[in-house]
Amino acid sequence: MNDKFVIGIDLGGTNIKGALLDLDGGIIEKREIPTLANAGPEAVAGRIAGMITELEAAVRDTGKSVAGVGIGVPGQPERSTGEVIFAPNLYWRNVPLVKYLRRYTGLPVFLENDANVAALGEQWRGAGQGSANMVMVTIGTGIGGGIVLDGRLYTGSNGAAGELGHAVIEPAGPQCSCGRRGCLETLTSATAMVRMAREALDRGVKTELSKEENLEARDIIMAAQAGDRLALDIVEKAAYYLGIGLGNIINILNPDTIVIGGGVSRAGELLFEPLCRNARANCLDCAGSIVRIVPAQLGNDAGFVGAAKLVLQDNTKKCII
Amino acid sequence: MNDKFVIGIDLGGTNIKGALLDLDGGIIEKREIPTLANAGPEAVAGRIAGMITELEAAVRDTGKSVAGVGIGVPGQPERSTGEVIFAPNLYWRNVPLVKYLRRYTGLPVFLENDANVAALGEQWRGAGQGSANMVMVTIGTGIGGGIVLDGRLYTGSNGAAGELGHAVIEPAGPQCSCGRRGCLETLTSATAMVRMAREALDRGVKTELSKEENLEARDIIMAAQAGDRLALDIVEKAAYYLGIGLGNIINILNPDTIVIGGGVSRAGELLFEPLCRNARANCLDCAGSIVRIVPAQLGNDAGFVGAAKLVLQDNTKKCII
Repeated sequence: MNDKFVIGIDLGGTNIKGALLDLDGGIIEKREIPTLANAGPEAVAGRIAGMITELEAAVRDTGKSVAGVGIGVPGQPERSTGEVIFAPNLYWRNVPLVKYLRRYTGLPVFLENDANVAALGEQWRGAGQGSANMVMVTIGTGIGGGIVLDGRLYTGSNGAAGELGHAVIEPAGPQCSCGRRGCLETLTSATAMVRMAREALDRGVKTELSKEENLEARDIIMAAQAGDRLALDIVEKAAYYLGIGLGNIINILNPDTIVIGGGVSRAGELLFEPLCRNARANCLDCAGSIVRIVPAQLGNDAGFVGAAKLVLQDNTKKCII
Repeated sequence: MNDKFVIGIDLGGTNIKGALLDLDGGIIEKREIPTLANAGPEAVAGRIAGMITELEAAVRDTGKSVAGVGIGVPGQPERSTGEVIFAPNLYWRNVPLVKYLRRYTGLPVFLENDANVAALGEQWRGAGQGSANMVMVTIGTGIGGGIVLDGRLYTGSNGAAGELGHAVIEPAGPQCSCGRRGCLETLTSATAMVRMAREALDRGVKTELSKEENLEARDIIMAAQAGDRLALDIVEKAAYYLGIGLGNIINILNPDTIVIGGGVSRAGELLFEPLCRNARANCLDCAGSIVRIVPAQLGNDAGFVGAAKLVLQDNTKKCII
């Protein structure tokens, strides 16, 4: 396989990112184009196929070749048929993406959920390198997760594993978009932090935070870094609940590494100090004493790096013909 | 391997149970003797070795042989050294059990935690037969758990996975023996049910339950089956919290089967109807729609059946020389 390369694609609602990688995960070529989801699934698939062809061209003249393509999608893939069952950001339902891409490119294509490939990417080349059992938690508008066990992506019985954001932590807590109350996502996501800030602003709490419509989690983190009391309290509260959520995951999965990704993870020590403290306080010592909790390293590259790694996994279960 | 057998031992604080099994998990011979833990680790190891020798004798004259011995211990095993690090019911610390048993029997010996082997037993020959991804939750004085993924026991990075009883469900809930508050174990174990009954009795709630010292969870379940309002409320409340705990496990692990073991599981439909309802209400539909939640089938045999199965796992990681 020394003359082989792999291609990873990260299909997002806004952009398609892709790269050609060597078998050690080194990035040879990188591309990014807008998704233009409004043009419909076939057009988007055509754009992805075009990117694959361009990336493949970089090695074609050297006598080397591409072993396959992995693709992460923002939704629910059906690995056995190669269909994207549901991808709300793309307005997709039952799109036979693997069939399209195989027809256009002639390459083996492997489909996976985007949170899962990001986890696999961090485990292969990022903050989880060398980890056997790793959990990635991505904190953004919602909370996503991906699980790598024994060095392989774990996706569960029908691909739904790793829904860490919908663990119920406070049964009487805030309403979640999923219909339940007190999911981790309602207590500790970027959205939750903005909600907490607005509630405090409405109560007239003194703060440097703006009452404007476009208040974002990054504003809260910046204000906390500048010493704003309310913002500090919000970060501490988010870290408290996230610590409970991570503690539960540590008790169940006993991972060696937890990688925290997403914009909120850029808060640095401000978030990680209380987060690590709360996580260890909320699990048994035996498991808590060995787990590293670290920020993600690959940023926006994690998706296509992990997607490329799909090609190199033992494919008895994941391979989609 | 057709002429081979395996031996499984379930070492408990009160009794040692063991059996000789064929490679399909069929029980050929069964033994049970008191542990007599007070006599010390070497004496207990000697009693186990005696049981192994007896069980082995049943095949020795037939030209067949025993491939190995698996043993489940009520505590924390260190698989790499074959020591039992800590087993509070036996008053054991750092007992080199595998070394003892190998010296006495000359057979390969595999060590595991008792909750884990029970899970493996149910997956091999009990309620989880045919399951790829199964979680067993045992509800007794505390709440224990074992996880089987891709048909193999999953024990985590240092053997501490599956501590389902210490998931924090109500951060402001009752004090747990582990030092935290609101662990699943404080809300839904046999102990928790008895505590709820006592609190209600102290408040003077009308019930058939006795105020006597020796009130047990089984009394509450029997009273509930006879229609006692308080007992019914307690079972419903335990099922509510257990449903949240199971919902969280379903969201994380997406198992095809959850097996409920322990005395409380004998409550039947009274427990299982609200339990299944609450579990499915507390996880995402994608994972909730495919999971079966069923009572354990092997009872006290689960431990030695699963212990025997240890011998037949791919032993690259578990083998203890």
